[in-house]
Amino acid sequence: MRYELYYWPQIQGRGEFVRLALEEAGTDYVDVARGSGGMERMQKLLRAKSSEYPLFAPPFLRAGKLLIGQTANILLFLGARHGLAPKSEAGRLWVNQLQLTVADLLVEAHDTHHPIAASLYYEDQKPEARRRAECFTKERIPKYLGYFENVLAHGGKAAFLAGRSLSYADLSLFQVVEGLRYAFPSAMAALEKKHPHVVKLHDRVAARPNIAAYLKSPRRIAFNQHGLFRHYPELDAKTA
Amino acid sequence: MRYELYYWPQIQGRGEFVRLALEEAGTDYVDVARGSGGMERMQKLLRAKSSEYPLFAPPFLRAGKLLIGQTANILLFLGARHGLAPKSEAGRLWVNQLQLTVADLLVEAHDTHHPIAASLYYEDQKPEARRRAECFTKERIPKYLGYFENVLAHGGKAAFLAGRSLSYADLSLFQVVEGLRYAFPSAMAALEKKHPHVVKLHDRVAARPNIAAYLKSPRRIAFNQHGLFRHYPELDAKTA
Repeated sequence: MRYELYYWPQIQGRGEFVRLALEEAGTDYVDVARGSGGMERMQKLLRAKSSEYPLFAPPFLRAGKLLIGQTANILLFLGARHGLAPKSEAGRLWVNQLQLTVADLLVEAHDTHHPIAASLYYEDQKPEARRRAECFTKERIPKYLGYFENVLAHGGKAAFLAGRSLSYADLSLFQVVEGLRYAFPSAMAALEKKHPHVVKLHDRVAARPNIAAYLKSPRRIAFNQHGLFRHYPELDAKTA
Repeated sequence: MRYELYYWPQIQGRGEFVRLALEEAGTDYVDVARGSGGMERMQKLLRAKSSEYPLFAPPFLRAGKLLIGQTANILLFLGARHGLAPKSEAGRLWVNQLQLTVADLLVEAHDTHHPIAASLYYEDQKPEARRRAECFTKERIPKYLGYFENVLAHGGKAAFLAGRSLSYADLSLFQVVEGLRYAFPSAMAALEKKHPHVVKLHDRVAARPNIAAYLKSPRRIAFNQHGLFRHYPELDAKTA
């Protein structure tokens, strides 16, 4: 069965967390909106009000008869299908819990450049963005990275967030580090030293054969100023 | 087995979504932080860095040996245990998808009064709050309520979001309506007319015996200016 991923074609965004899972698992999938006529197909599904499971927003995944929305929900499904989450109930819940904490971080990262409304341009909310980004880089990134650092540091010799095997939460934390490095290089240069386990996890994920191949392929969209993580120098931490 | 719910004792907040599920299911549970010494017990668990599954923030639930964090994750667990979600994979994913959409709405509702940082007082971000709240009441509440209205309207004769049986997503949508009514009474007075199925669902949930008894009990904390939904008249829509 070929999966159909539906997401905005010019950005990594939330769709990237699904792409990473599909790539790591070596699945057969098509990134629909990046192909010819794909945006129309995506918009049609988004507007399909009478479908059994109406969609709120991309990303969503078609898997045979299933049409699944919400990033963490898609990953819950893929994790169980492709060995990207533990089989035990406790393990599955734990990975979902980690993913939802990543989801919280993503909202905050996005809102550094859109603190007033996603429907307004960045240029229309610059002073507010500056205030929000300062709190984000000073308080929130350290809180989140400190949390994941602790999970990894107290896992004993376990290499991953949920133990000895990779889960989709590890792929997501890799992507968080990638995104934060792009958006806040100055803040991250200082913070990475304090979070060595997180950096090591990032490197371990990047080195996995399927992920390494994906990152070098044209399927990996470059970071840019339209996505969730954006680099506006005025929002980054000042170097001392 | 007695569940232990851990959440801030003075507010409904995100803990309320768990309380509603525990109440509807008629479970035996204790709201730990509201009892003597409970706050200390909660803080101790939050600080327990070397636990198997470290916690990021309340609410969290102890269920025997399990310690589960993140609201939607707790509900995923309770839904399966207590018949508050369909048994089929498609149905479980659908209810989780709905709950994650509710979670997105909650972040936005909270950020109307804290658009810059949760660590700052409302008084330190009032102009920004006003701008954000205007977009929220004009664009975002209609988008979310319109989505849920459509789900309910196209469900045929089905009374609930996931069909003929109540799920935890219905309890959550009830609570969303309660919260929005408290925080934005003027905006909601206008919007409710356009979303009759959502209002009907709210009323249907409120009339369920366990929920009705809970709402009248001292276990239900009143809305106030410390929670997720806050009533600041200056953030509500202007009446025409």
